[in-house]
Amino acid sequence: MSSTARLNGAQALMQTLADAGVEVCFTNPGTSEMHFVAALDSEPRMRAVLALFEGVATGAADGYARIADKPAATLLHLGCGLGNGLANLHNARKGKVPVLNIVGDHATTHAPFDAQLQSDIETVARNVSPGFVRTSRATASLCRDAVDALTAARGLPGQVATLILPADVSWGAGGVPAAPPPPPAAVAADAATVSAIADVLRSGAKAALLLGGRALREPGLLAAARIAAHCGAQVFAEVFPTRLERGAGLPAVERVAYLAEMAGVQLAGLQHLILVDAKAPVSFFAYPGKPSLLVPEGCTVHTLCTPAQDAHACLAQLVQALGAAQARPTLQAPTRPTRPRGALTAPKVCKAVGHLLPEQAIVIDEAITSGLMLGVMTAGCPRHDLITLTGGAIGQGLPNAIGAAIAAPQRPVIALVGDGSAMYTIQALWTLAREHLHVVAIVFNNAAYSVLNVELERVGAAQGGAKAKAQFDLQAPVLHFAQLAQGMGVHAVRTDRAEDFCQALDYALAHPGPHLIEALVPESLSGARRKLLPWLLRSLPSLPQPVARALKRAMAP
Amino acid sequence: MSSTARLNGAQALMQTLADAGVEVCFTNPGTSEMHFVAALDSEPRMRAVLALFEGVATGAADGYARIADKPAATLLHLGCGLGNGLANLHNARKGKVPVLNIVGDHATTHAPFDAQLQSDIETVARNVSPGFVRTSRATASLCRDAVDALTAARGLPGQVATLILPADVSWGAGGVPAAPPPPPAAVAADAATVSAIADVLRSGAKAALLLGGRALREPGLLAAARIAAHCGAQVFAEVFPTRLERGAGLPAVERVAYLAEMAGVQLAGLQHLILVDAKAPVSFFAYPGKPSLLVPEGCTVHTLCTPAQDAHACLAQLVQALGAAQARPTLQAPTRPTRPRGALTAPKVCKAVGHLLPEQAIVIDEAITSGLMLGVMTAGCPRHDLITLTGGAIGQGLPNAIGAAIAAPQRPVIALVGDGSAMYTIQALWTLAREHLHVVAIVFNNAAYSVLNVELERVGAAQGGAKAKAQFDLQAPVLHFAQLAQGMGVHAVRTDRAEDFCQALDYALAHPGPHLIEALVPESLSGARRKLLPWLLRSLPSLPQPVARALKRAMAP
Repeated sequence: MSSTARLNGAQALMQTLADAGVEVCFTNPGTSEMHFVAALDSEPRMRAVLALFEGVATGAADGYARIADKPAATLLHLGCGLGNGLANLHNARKGKVPVLNIVGDHATTHAPFDAQLQSDIETVARNVSPGFVRTSRATASLCRDAVDALTAARGLPGQVATLILPADVSWGAGGVPAAPPPPPAAVAADAATVSAIADVLRSGAKAALLLGGRALREPGLLAAARIAAHCGAQVFAEVFPTRLERGAGLPAVERVAYLAEMAGVQLAGLQHLILVDAKAPVSFFAYPGKPSLLVPEGCTVHTLCTPAQDAHACLAQLVQALGAAQARPTLQAPTRPTRPRGALTAPKVCKAVGHLLPEQAIVIDEAITSGLMLGVMTAGCPRHDLITLTGGAIGQGLPNAIGAAIAAPQRPVIALVGDGSAMYTIQALWTLAREHLHVVAIVFNNAAYSVLNVELERVGAAQGGAKAKAQFDLQAPVLHFAQLAQGMGVHAVRTDRAEDFCQALDYALAHPGPHLIEALVPESLSGARRKLLPWLLRSLPSLPQPVARALKRAMAP
Repeated sequence: MSSTARLNGAQALMQTLADAGVEVCFTNPGTSEMHFVAALDSEPRMRAVLALFEGVATGAADGYARIADKPAATLLHLGCGLGNGLANLHNARKGKVPVLNIVGDHATTHAPFDAQLQSDIETVARNVSPGFVRTSRATASLCRDAVDALTAARGLPGQVATLILPADVSWGAGGVPAAPPPPPAAVAADAATVSAIADVLRSGAKAALLLGGRALREPGLLAAARIAAHCGAQVFAEVFPTRLERGAGLPAVERVAYLAEMAGVQLAGLQHLILVDAKAPVSFFAYPGKPSLLVPEGCTVHTLCTPAQDAHACLAQLVQALGAAQARPTLQAPTRPTRPRGALTAPKVCKAVGHLLPEQAIVIDEAITSGLMLGVMTAGCPRHDLITLTGGAIGQGLPNAIGAAIAAPQRPVIALVGDGSAMYTIQALWTLAREHLHVVAIVFNNAAYSVLNVELERVGAAQGGAKAKAQFDLQAPVLHFAQLAQGMGVHAVRTDRAEDFCQALDYALAHPGPHLIEALVPESLSGARRKLLPWLLRSLPSLPQPVARALKRAMAP
């Protein structure tokens, strides 16, 4: 009789996960997950990280996988726990990030009694796990189910795979560990496609590569930059990259703008758009009378590789077809902004980050309106990773920071978040303190849902009166983020002067452990700028291209 | 041309809702809801209450409806917003509470482009709205869709109805307001059923009524108490009432215990259990080798009325069939505990609440282990409403308090929540401050998921080691709830002495507006008590009934 014969389901599952390289589980358990929790102590390779709210656990799993390049597990409590975790799983899904989602359920024998927490978990899971939802039905096959889930999660593209684990399947005797899944098969590009795209690039027509997904790592960026150097194509990155490697020594790449009007300026005149692990760009939201698809009229879209293919291999094929292997890519020169001074503003916060960003940092950007200058200010900083809001579900930044810091404990993590965004998953601060993670959370406090003030006008609902405007106003009372952080055991300061902000950031970077810096800033799109913006956005399409480009750069660099 | 001909969809919807008596909308909007937001100013009867997190908005809608006896609307942002709001909608669903859930979606023309926030909303909605999910497809029929949703929500039983509102249906011209739905038809009990149950009650066999849902309001309680006085039946309330009217002058009713072992003691020996707008009691969770159904063997279950029937009418029929109309119900005498002194403990907090509970209070109880004494300590207090955790999804208490206070602005609201529970929806404090609601939030801080320590042993996973136990430990760092409250603009104090707690509660009740009192208490189930509990629970079924009853009362009165 083998030594595994006495394992219960949870213990066998734990061993299977660890064997497959799943070493971290972000948890918010309840009674139905107690045997899984008890099994943690049977597997020394598994680290359990407790969150006070499921959205923190799922966002941490997302951030972890983006940096570790392998999935973590979550542990959630029935349908309600999954619901609480849904928004950040959505961000992971849209970012093609692998996550193994384990949702505890009532014992199979208990389900028919419709107890208080009974609900249809699978219907919720389908939202974020369209590719893999399975309720494990028997202890003996639980680990095979888990390996199937992992196979799905780690595939190309990566995805959120949801395994529903009934309590009796977990506690039942006779758990049988299963062997790890093989790595996903890398599918290269079709030779004819590569050849056709090479012809387009050689033709002299105005063409651009749009990189997304894994193409935004160093090998993909270098290949794309060689192609650009060789045949003059432009290179864009998708609007919200899952993980973008950038900084001095790497090719710089221009992101498609969030505002459709500005993206229109960027893409104007293109005759060919070549997708590399990216979708054709579409407007984030719909606006009355405006098109959803941002590809300019007359532009032909080509797909070099889909998210199901190996982007680096496909780009290498294209480089070879073009004979561009020896082309010298343009690399970003090292440069930093100066130290900002005076009354704090959102651009000065970005400037301070650029001034001080350490080597090998992980930068998480969820400061929707306040962070507009971040890209410019950090472009020539030492090499770093940028993580962004892939699915548009705010509340991602702080949880992502937990996962990133656990995946790369030696790297400093800087998370920039808006006041509105921070409040969705503010409980993340407690886990940062509990795990003593080296994360600097920068919260822009402008006491507003600033972006919605703009959106109200963009959707043509500018007749909004006092009640409507109150919906974007976080002024009464103004949140005090430093106090919130201190209440969760995180060192925190509140600043409204650039000098103080720089000092606080210096201090935080020098002292391992979590820190929160609250930046009191005026609303970034207030006053004249906010009044001007809708007019400018409307006018952009009709302006001469050079003027439009200059304006676009000034407005959202 | 009528004056409504120029309404867009959102404006017509707003008018339809107000006409139907929906006067409050709990919101957390985004761009796709901007026209709904703009339309708020077109309808003076509609109050919009902003939440910083969707779980706060949905929990507030739940609390509102429990007190107002009519639905509020929510306004949520696509599938992710619905996900964030799911847990408290689940609690509403399980409590049969009417909620009109309005979920904004991308414009119908935008959906095929799979933008960042695109997801399958309906599949999420089915979890909490199995009875009514509809995506409105055209501006002209939007208000009819809304009335259908309201009809479903306000039916018997009440439910969560989800109306998905694409942005173009909202902004489109040609909105047509619709007439309010009729009140739901009240279905009385079948005469033969009433007669058979009357026979059972007259037979002298040991029988009990189990009241749930609306039967726990004054008319239902009085009718049941008359029946009990007339023929000696016991009366129980379901374990987690949606709203229980109680206090001096009303019949007192014993709730079925949360712990199945204790419920077994309560129900032991029953020959007939008569359900009145209640389900046959089942164990909250499943435990290895234990039954899920708590009805004792040999006990016959009768249904006087289902949740689809009018509980008060059915009870009145039964009273009449029994000739019990003149029976004198036993009413709770007025009594209060004395003022507690010394080091603060969870029972002393409950005692202080009993000592000071004002007239017409609304008490919200989500203090799972700490609140065990609350029922005993407030039994003889002035008449009040008790709201409990109907669906087991923690994070309900603070949001419920918002809704209850808005539904009954002249009544003081006291919400007792555990530290773990409070953190799921801690953002509720900001809305309490913003709306200046007269709510006293009492947070028991024992720095633990106390209930899970018990559950680990109850599920037979007692071999849990250090990693497992760390999953229930909120000690490093200890949360500082008073600081969290202050950071959201709520007056707050932190106490560890009963005298200070009483003083703080006195002050809070005397000063309208929100207050948080953090009660630092030792873990309620620590030390000897926690070691003893699993043994006691195991032993209860085999003990002589009088001993078991006495022990049950001592452990969870």
